[in-house]
Amino acid sequence: MPLWTIYHTPDLFTDDDKHQLAARVADHYENVGLPRFYVVTLFRETRPEDFYVGGEPAAAAVRITIDHIARRNPDQESRRRSARWIKGMLQDQLGQREGLHWEFHVDETSEDLWMINGIVPPPGGSDAEKNWAKQNSASPY
Amino acid sequence: MPLWTIYHTPDLFTDDDKHQLAARVADHYENVGLPRFYVVTLFRETRPEDFYVGGEPAAAAVRITIDHIARRNPDQESRRRSARWIKGMLQDQLGQREGLHWEFHVDETSEDLWMINGIVPPPGGSDAEKNWAKQNSASPY
Amino acid sequence: MPLWTIYHTPDLFTDDDKHQLAARVADHYENVGLPRFYVVTLFRETRPEDFYVGGEPAAAAVRITIDHIARRNPDQESRRRSARWIKGMLQDQLGQREGLHWEFHVDETSEDLWMINGIVPPPGGSDAEKNWAKQNSASPY
Repeated sequence: MPLWTIYHTPDLFTDDDKHQLAARVADHYENVGLPRFYVVTLFRETRPEDFYVGGEPAAAAVRITIDHIARRNPDQESRRRSARWIKGMLQDQLGQREGLHWEFHVDETSEDLWMINGIVPPPGGSDAEKNWAKQNSASPY
Repeated sequence: MPLWTIYHTPDLFTDDDKHQLAARVADHYENVGLPRFYVVTLFRETRPEDFYVGGEPAAAAVRITIDHIARRNPDQESRRRSARWIKGMLQDQLGQREGLHWEFHVDETSEDLWMINGIVPPPGGSDAEKNWAKQNSASPY
Repeated sequence: MPLWTIYHTPDLFTDDDKHQLAARVADHYENVGLPRFYVVTLFRETRPEDFYVGGEPAAAAVRITIDHIARRNPDQESRRRSARWIKGMLQDQLGQREGLHWEFHVDETSEDLWMINGIVPPPGGSDAEKNWAKQNSASPY
């Protein structure tokens, strides 16, 4: 948690761009208290013949699916704030490209159905979670 | 929204088949009022050594995951109607193939956690959404 | 249902390892009464430049997303039991590898929005489902 899966057409990102984007995403979650290693970002290059927007092969498109597990928004305003927060991570790198379709959505799933290295992650905000954040790794607690 | 991710074994679809299927899917959503460019369809070719059905490598299989965001079914009968509607998009192209395993499921997620090109899409059925549908693109509203 | 998608860095699994893991996963679901062919397992090899943990390219990582459709946990204790049950399928193959990040989470979605070969699967625990399990294939019922 969170898991970002980024489908993109070829030639949009260099390996450096990907690294920078993944690091920026991890920064944002770390800044709100999550252990940095919770953040997994996958890039899936997809050629236009396999990537359709509105039924047509996409020349340039980015479609991001995000799974949020450890934290869940309690109400609509909080969800909308989350969406703006995520937009803020992407705007600089994606917002300036002419003709690009870029889109994300978030799914929220149960933290009870989640394990890292076979361990149930500690409750959000707990001392054990702060310790995981400091160590930046999972350990028995 | 909607996002269709189609995992399939090799040699089931030509690029033309994919284009046709993606266009048919977009047609169906457009016919119920969604802007056509909301519909993203991704094909992920997967060799049998990476695609198991019942624990065995699949000679011929299609597994489709669908994320619905902008519209949510209010009750069971409505969900079942949606499933039949989706089956109708696939039956012609997949239903006749002997020995093929084909399967889909839909996840419904919150429209509050969704943006296209950094913009919150307009409410379903609104004039702004109709305008997006007519333009077939996102724009400030 | 269930759908397991296993993203992994290169050189973690041979084709034989994948087959064995997929078979073990199918065994577990079969043992609790599901038709074996319900279990679909996809492997997605992902190079470190496309797989980031905590914003850094992952040398060795496995990230598994699981969709559960036909069965839903009624409460927290049941969800936690499911997580331990899944851990049990993975521990032997993944738990001993030094330096590996491995993580899974489960999403639960509606059985009403699901079809196999164009057929609504029979209700969980029904005679028709037992028959599908025995035949290990979908058929009109």
